[in-house]
This record gives sequence, structure tokens and C-alpha cells, in this order.
Amino acid sequence: MSKPVVAITMGDPAGVGPEVCLRAVADPRVGAACVPVIVGDRGVLARVASAVGLAPPPAAMDPEAWTADLTAPAVVDMRAIDAAAVVPGEMAPACGRAAAAYIDAAIAAALDGRAAAVATAPIHKEALRLGGCPHPGHTEIFAAATGAARVCMILVGPDLAVSFVTVHVGYADVPAGLTVERIGEVIDLTAETIGRLLGRKPRIGVCGLNPHAGEHGLFGRREEQRLIAPAVDAARRRGIDLTGPWPADAIFTPEQRARYDAIVCMYHDQGHIPFKMLAFDTGVNVTAGLPIVRTSVDHGTAFDIAWTGRARPTSLIQAILLGVRLAEGRRP
Amino acid sequence: MSKPVVAITMGDPAGVGPEVCLRAVADPRVGAACVPVIVGDRGVLARVASAVGLAPPPAAMDPEAWTADLTAPAVVDMRAIDAAAVVPGEMAPACGRAAAAYIDAAIAAALDGRAAAVATAPIHKEALRLGGCPHPGHTEIFAAATGAARVCMILVGPDLAVSFVTVHVGYADVPAGLTVERIGEVIDLTAETIGRLLGRKPRIGVCGLNPHAGEHGLFGRREEQRLIAPAVDAARRRGIDLTGPWPADAIFTPEQRARYDAIVCMYHDQGHIPFKMLAFDTGVNVTAGLPIVRTSVDHGTAFDIAWTGRARPTSLIQAILLGVRLAEGRRP
Repeated sequence: MSKPVVAITMGDPAGVGPEVCLRAVADPRVGAACVPVIVGDRGVLARVASAVGLAPPPAAMDPEAWTADLTAPAVVDMRAIDAAAVVPGEMAPACGRAAAAYIDAAIAAALDGRAAAVATAPIHKEALRLGGCPHPGHTEIFAAATGAARVCMILVGPDLAVSFVTVHVGYADVPAGLTVERIGEVIDLTAETIGRLLGRKPRIGVCGLNPHAGEHGLFGRREEQRLIAPAVDAARRRGIDLTGPWPADAIFTPEQRARYDAIVCMYHDQGHIPFKMLAFDTGVNVTAGLPIVRTSVDHGTAFDIAWTGRARPTSLIQAILLGVRLAEGRRP
Repeated sequence: MSKPVVAITMGDPAGVGPEVCLRAVADPRVGAACVPVIVGDRGVLARVASAVGLAPPPAAMDPEAWTADLTAPAVVDMRAIDAAAVVPGEMAPACGRAAAAYIDAAIAAALDGRAAAVATAPIHKEALRLGGCPHPGHTEIFAAATGAARVCMILVGPDLAVSFVTVHVGYADVPAGLTVERIGEVIDLTAETIGRLLGRKPRIGVCGLNPHAGEHGLFGRREEQRLIAPAVDAARRRGIDLTGPWPADAIFTPEQRARYDAIVCMYHDQGHIPFKMLAFDTGVNVTAGLPIVRTSVDHGTAFDIAWTGRARPTSLIQAILLGVRLAEGRRP
């Protein structure tokens, strides 16, 4: 059986993306598990390789030459940006535009079967916006491009997996994003995805929204009673193994979190704070609910260390390997 | 120099409070540092001691006999509840009422110099409310009883200290509680209290409110630019060593949190999630800004293990010892 092709988007050219891509495609675990294909700009990769003392990037090919039967690592050269004009560590609309082009090409390849999975290097959200992208982040781009009706972000680390009912919205806009339907959707997507990874029914914990999960309605607007508990009860009736809502400051203690294969969170920092404490740059971001497999690093562009040789590829390597596992879990 | 008297409130009679009080007053570190006085019900303490196989409580005295010159451990017997009627692990208005009486008596003793510090065992917020207390928690009771104009909660653990701009309010009510003035107040109280503990100017980090601290206004309602950054800038001009606002999911990673002696948080779970992950039952809760010293356990009543002999006194012991240190830091 031939190895699956994983499309790796290069991310923001001015960030750590090019360096972690170069390091990841050279990693023996990656080479053993898949055929890695960087979707980016060969000129940028060559400049970064030279700047940080890495081997040159794999052979470049034109986007039209990308067929379904690749067997060797490659760079799909999008020529989306002038490599000489990229300033490492500097936010630029042209970089955001290029990063969006890599993502679009990788999604197209996954949709028509030229890639089994997409693993994404970090983008800069402000550059993306200034570059004209109408979406706030990767997850939303993938959902729109694939026509997925329901998606959610799941962070997967060695000791903890967290999924999100809301993600990239302001603090004050979270309550409006919580509905019984959306919470149930995220519970389902979490159960499906983590179940596929583990090969068994996962144990899921669900966080409350308010301090002490509302303490029986003492704090908050009874979101636990009105929204979260009904979603948990309905999911249990669908056969999902779950409990909640739990106080968020209790469920992440070592003793409590060991009881769950995944924890469903109501908002970004509720899950990102504990996850990054435990898996700062080794975690993988999975978009559940897409018709294609998409994983991502869980770190940012790290402009302060871009093109310096100090970026660690751990998270991207884990993202590629997890992408392979998820793709294999989908094979008939 | 005589040892300071620390008043230890017994907490909710049906919770782990009585057991951890008995264990803490018997601890040699506590006996070496202070004269511990439990403010509670001797009948309850005697029942718990017998149930879990501990030595009987210290000698009981009537509340009127509590003078400024105690030299031996004691129980101030408030007779606030019928010991025989207490059901371990069961929420009861009578227990909430008794817990409030212990707190009131301890505050009075600290205000008139009969105690150098108050350390509080856990109460049950719902029992407190049903018992007729108009305040949601300890912090608010202490602020009201001492007439303190500005207070804040600080959690102090071996590796991390966090303080709170808002605490016991629902998720959706947090934004209304954030003002430049209140954030500045909590920064000042944090600097004073942690400075007193360390004996030097503390390094303080301040969290943002939104995901990625708003990412330059991309998420949220510019609370970082409108409220937090101005408060940070003003505090820096007052000579406080601080930075922020930082993304909350970044500042608590091991590498980042090591840069700060304390981290100012905007809401309950932002600080409680990381704190409890690191110091589940060894942390101490300090109320900064009071005219008296008040520390507390950072765990709850743990009704599921009340009166079983399984409660660990670590947090209460740390609270008592920290109370002594804070009281000594105030001596002229």
C-alpha cells in the first residue's frame, strides 16, 4: 500500500512556518509515515534554509504538476510572494495573502484526492485579514471552502484533548454562541474524532460556563441548567459516554482530567489555558467535521524567533503524524 | 515576643472544615508559628474527632472569655448549631448560618486585636445564601464587615500567585466589572501584598480578556486597548514593575509564568484553572486590601468526603502560616 500524501501549508512566510516545514519534512518519522508535500513558495523556503543552515527544500513542482500519485517529498511552488521582499518577523498583508493561497491550494488537493490530509503551519490572523481574507482563522477557511455544515476545533496533546463550542470570538460574544444544538454538535464531533483516534468509545467531560459551573444557579444566567445540562443529557441518550457540566477549575486538575479522553470547553481560553500549560508546542489542532482531514500546529507565527533557527518542529511533526492516523481511520 | 493568635473559622459544619481544623491545630508547624484558635462549635468538632479517630479538640471557651492574651490553642465555642443535627455532606441552611456566625466572630476579634490574623475553612455558598447571608462569599463578607473600600482575592501557591479583578460573578457579568480604576486597584493591591510577602518589589504580569488578548482589536470589544492597557500604563507610572495585557493562554505556560511573581486575572476561571492545576489543595486564598489579615483554604467543602478522615489539611496549614507571615509584615 502506498504512503498517503500529506499537504503541508507553509503558513505566514514571515513567521516560523517555513523553518518548521523544512525541519518536519526532513524528520524520519514523517518520511516513514507519509509523502510530505509543502504547499508554499520555494524561494522563501530556500532563503530560510540558507539563513538557518538547513538542507535546501525538496524538489519544486508547479501547482499544475501536482497529481494523485506523488511518491517523493516535494514543494508545490505557489509563487504567491516575492521571496526577496519578505521581512522575517514583520506583519505584512502580502504575507497574509500568500498564506491564504497555500491553504486554498491544499484544500483543493485534499478535496479531489491528491492529498490524504492537510497539515497547516501557523498564519498571522491580522496579516490574513489585511491580506483580504474574509475569515478570522484556518478553521473558518476550511469550513467555508469544503461546505462543512458543522465543524469544531479540537486540540490533541499527549495528556489532554479539548474541544471548543466557541473559539475565535471576543469574550463578551461567547454567551450568544452557546445553544443546546451547538453544544450537542461539538459533543458529537468530539466523540467521533477522538473515538476514531482511540479505536473505542471515548469518555468525555463537559465544562460549565460560570465560576463553579454556576453553583446551582448562584452565578451567571443559568447557562448550565438552560443550555449545557440539556445538551449533555441528550448526548447521553444518543449513547455518548459523558458527564458534566463541571466547574472548569476543577476538571483540569491532574486527578480529574485523567478521567476523560476529551473535555468539551465553552470558549477559547477555558481550554487553551490548560492545554498550553501541558503541551505548549507539542499539541495538534484538529478541525473535526470536515469532509477532509485537517490538522495544524497549535502555536503561532512566533515572529520574534522567525528565520533564526530556533523554531521547534515538534508540533508540526505531531500534526502530520496525527493527520496520517486520522486519514487511515477514514479508509474503508 | 509572644506568638500571634490566628483565628481559624471552622467553615460549614457539614463539610471538611471541622476535620481540617482539627488536623491543622495539631500540626507542629502551626503550633510553632502561632497560637491557633478555632472559632466554631466544640460539639461538632468532638463528633468529627471521634468519627475519624483524631484526638479531641483543644479546650473550649465561651466567646466572652476570648481575650487578647491567649497563649494556648483553644476552641471558641460559638454554639451556633446543634451538633447532633448536622448531617455530614448535606447542604443545610442551619450550617450556612453557623458558618457565618464563626466568620463574624473571627472578624470582630481581628478588628479589636484579639487575633493577628484570620484563616478560614471552606463554606458552602448555597448554604450560606439559604442561611440568610446577603454576601456570595468570604471575600465580600470580610469587605463589608471591615468597611474596606477596595479588596481583591489573591491565590498564593508554591509556584504561582494570581489575583482577580472580578471573582464571584457570572461569566456574562464580567465585562461590566472591568474598569480602568478597578484594574488599577487590583494591580496596586497585588503589588502591595506580594511585595510584603517577598520583601521586594514584585514582577507582575497582567492578562487580557479576549482570546489572544484581542489580537490588536481583532477579537472582542477592545477591552485590552480601552481598559487594561491604560491601567497597566498608569500603574507603571506609579512605579510598579509590570507588563501586559498578555494572552491568558500564553502567560501560564511554564516558561512565561516563571517571569512573574504574580499574575493579575480578569475573571474567576482565568486564574483558577491554572492555579488549581498547579496547586490543587496546597494553595492559599488571601484577601488583599482589608484592615486585618485574612487568608483561606482554596478548596471547597468537599461534601463527598466530609467527616470521613480523608480530608488533607495542607491548604489550611499553609493559610495559617501565610497569615502569620502577612501579620508580621504589618508589624511596625
